Amino acid sequence: MDRREGLKGFSAQLWADTLRETRRKRPLVYSITNFVAASFQANAALAVGARPVMSRNPSESREIAAGADALVINTGTPTEESVEAIRGALSGAGEGKCILLDPVGYGASSYRKSLIDSLISEFTFSHIKGNVSEITLLAGEKGAMTGVDAVLTASPPAAAVRRLSLRTGSLVCATGETDYLGDGKSVLAFSGGSPYMPLVTGSGCVLGTLMAVLSAGAGNDPAAGASCAIVLLRLAAEIADRKASGPGSFRSELLDALFRVSPEDLLEEQNRMTVKE
Amino acid sequence: MDRREGLKGFSAQLWADTLRETRRKRPLVYSITNFVAASFQANAALAVGARPVMSRNPSESREIAAGADALVINTGTPTEESVEAIRGALSGAGEGKCILLDPVGYGASSYRKSLIDSLISEFTFSHIKGNVSEITLLAGEKGAMTGVDAVLTASPPAAAVRRLSLRTGSLVCATGETDYLGDGKSVLAFSGGSPYMPLVTGSGCVLGTLMAVLSAGAGNDPAAGASCAIVLLRLAAEIADRKASGPGSFRSELLDALFRVSPEDLLEEQNRMTVKE
Amino acid sequence: MDRREGLKGFSAQLWADTLRETRRKRPLVYSITNFVAASFQANAALAVGARPVMSRNPSESREIAAGADALVINTGTPTEESVEAIRGALSGAGEGKCILLDPVGYGASSYRKSLIDSLISEFTFSHIKGNVSEITLLAGEKGAMTGVDAVLTASPPAAAVRRLSLRTGSLVCATGETDYLGDGKSVLAFSGGSPYMPLVTGSGCVLGTLMAVLSAGAGNDPAAGASCAIVLLRLAAEIADRKASGPGSFRSELLDALFRVSPEDLLEEQNRMTVKE
Repeated sequence: MDRREGLKGFSAQLWADTLRETRRKRPLVYSITNFVAASFQANAALAVGARPVMSRNPSESREIAAGADALVINTGTPTEESVEAIRGALSGAGEGKCILLDPVGYGASSYRKSLIDSLISEFTFSHIKGNVSEITLLAGEKGAMTGVDAVLTASPPAAAVRRLSLRTGSLVCATGETDYLGDGKSVLAFSGGSPYMPLVTGSGCVLGTLMAVLSAGAGNDPAAGASCAIVLLRLAAEIADRKASGPGSFRSELLDALFRVSPEDLLEEQNRMTVKE
Repeated sequence: MDRREGLKGFSAQLWADTLRETRRKRPLVYSITNFVAASFQANAALAVGARPVMSRNPSESREIAAGADALVINTGTPTEESVEAIRGALSGAGEGKCILLDPVGYGASSYRKSLIDSLISEFTFSHIKGNVSEITLLAGEKGAMTGVDAVLTASPPAAAVRRLSLRTGSLVCATGETDYLGDGKSVLAFSGGSPYMPLVTGSGCVLGTLMAVLSAGAGNDPAAGASCAIVLLRLAAEIADRKASGPGSFRSELLDALFRVSPEDLLEEQNRMTVKE
Repeated sequence: MDRREGLKGFSAQLWADTLRETRRKRPLVYSITNFVAASFQANAALAVGARPVMSRNPSESREIAAGADALVINTGTPTEESVEAIRGALSGAGEGKCILLDPVGYGASSYRKSLIDSLISEFTFSHIKGNVSEITLLAGEKGAMTGVDAVLTASPPAAAVRRLSLRTGSLVCATGETDYLGDGKSVLAFSGGSPYMPLVTGSGCVLGTLMAVLSAGAGNDPAAGASCAIVLLRLAAEIADRKASGPGSFRSELLDALFRVSPEDLLEEQNRMTVKE
């Protein structure tokens, strides 16, 4: 990767190297996450060679975070204890490791909105990854949110990604039929995948896990890890789609595909990415 | 549906219309449920076109309930917070939407019994759906309960369904090899399905989710939604049964089948229902 | 089984009888366990004919434990309430039933270490089953633990199993590529299985569930149940391995195989076990 080009310099070679290194290093990823997606996220982490650990207990979150190679903070199904655990983990994580925020349900309640706003203002995240509604609202767009994946009429996702990245300093990803990934300078768009993806609960949470894991595998490079995760998941989804006969079998096939995709397979994936702005 | 006939007037056409409308409207279903079945329930909701949201947090349950199209209250794996969340959701849900109670574990402990009794006395539910043991005990039968699915020697399920419905004003469903659905006037019996169903954890919870989702899809018609859910799940179970080689593959196949069954398929299902009394 | 021979006298006939009796008796197994593996454990219990019940609520754990045929205490994802529920269940379980401790995450944090140490010092367990890192650390070996499945350079697993068993009086199992099972006198080693096993989250937790369930089925015989569980799970894993194309399909196939393995199939499994010391 030519660092002078920033995000635009991403190449398929970088993704192949990232996946290879991740499988070799077996990063320890600590997730504080919701109980709906937790099992799926743990299985996805294992499928790409990582070692997942999960706990929502404030008496141990600081210590576990300190020892982990990467951190995933997912705000789904929060409890009083899990929120305290999140704060402990973020305080104790230490320097130099990737910390991803998945602001699940931003806008679904004023409680969730306050929680996420305060986390962003108090702590620094290497990545913020949400669905397009969450990212758009976080970027300051007005709009009605219903449930956890509402579709808004709003400005284009790429603009929201850029704006939120400029405000937070985080690499930002907005997921949807197209995934947008951007820092303050450029925004990339990623295509492909499968229409089954939004029909499997936790598939967005899985992307967050993969981003954190692969960023650690890439030597704590948030952009290499995030782009590799998007490409890997979309390729795996296409493989799974061809074998699946519905969302139930798709979920199993997706884990199989995440396990089977090789670094070499990613070398063919350059065209999945386009520079949006 | 000829409303003068009540439950007895259900027709396969009603079920087809209910499924079609549900897929079109994409109702937002808010479930406060146990952590064992949550993922399965969310995937089942997605498979029939609904949008699931889950939270057991009392700081947001009222607000989420107010914005949802239907509510599922499932008493499995209760915590102090989740019970408080349930009360908040029920207080804040507002008028005109279906609210289903799944009294998981009624009789498994005196704590669970008190919890469920107090919910039924304080709040109004459009549906109460439990396994035959739970419904029989709730209807006032005496009997020993062991675990969450004990078989009792007791009066016929149809009588318990009728009695509980008369006492609560809710539409009542008792599940088992045959499902019984009744209001105070009539009781229907539904046959078919698969012997794998009781071997998959959360399959009863999934029925509760489908009932709530389809009731919202049917324009907040509890009886249309509940009967459609039973028929749809039993048909999907039969399709899955033919492809499965055990309870693990059955679970995946069931989600595939829920996704693939079309409104037209339900037109063939009239014979699954018989009028019991 | 010739009781004079202790563990060494195990025969395939004992395993076949244990599985047959378990399927006939349908033991009620109460698990206080983590939210990541709970669903998988419940499905595994159902697949071998048991009836699972789960709750992490201290207001009912004592009563549920009193009525259960076997108890699984799994320390994954602990909360303040779940730890209190564990203590209640252990206090109220009563005599004569198998109680298995799965010390998940021992060494992952000082909180988890204290919790598990105090449980072992205050209560008596029929079984302690952990991965080789957890058992080695519990046996008093020094070593660094990272995450929940760290590999340590330490003394041979068989020695750790023997030492921990002598200290606690529990039957001890250390899992890994080879599983070691021992009391204070002898240690057995079990081979076979599938490389997919460690790639499926909760597969170790499932072994704990099967051990408790089958011990109850064997008339509260911890050694018969534990050895049968190891053999059954490794045989099922081999069957699943041949059909799977990755860890996602393996998980489904494993549940299918657990359901389909017959008592007669276990008669062929004597060679899976060797006497280690």
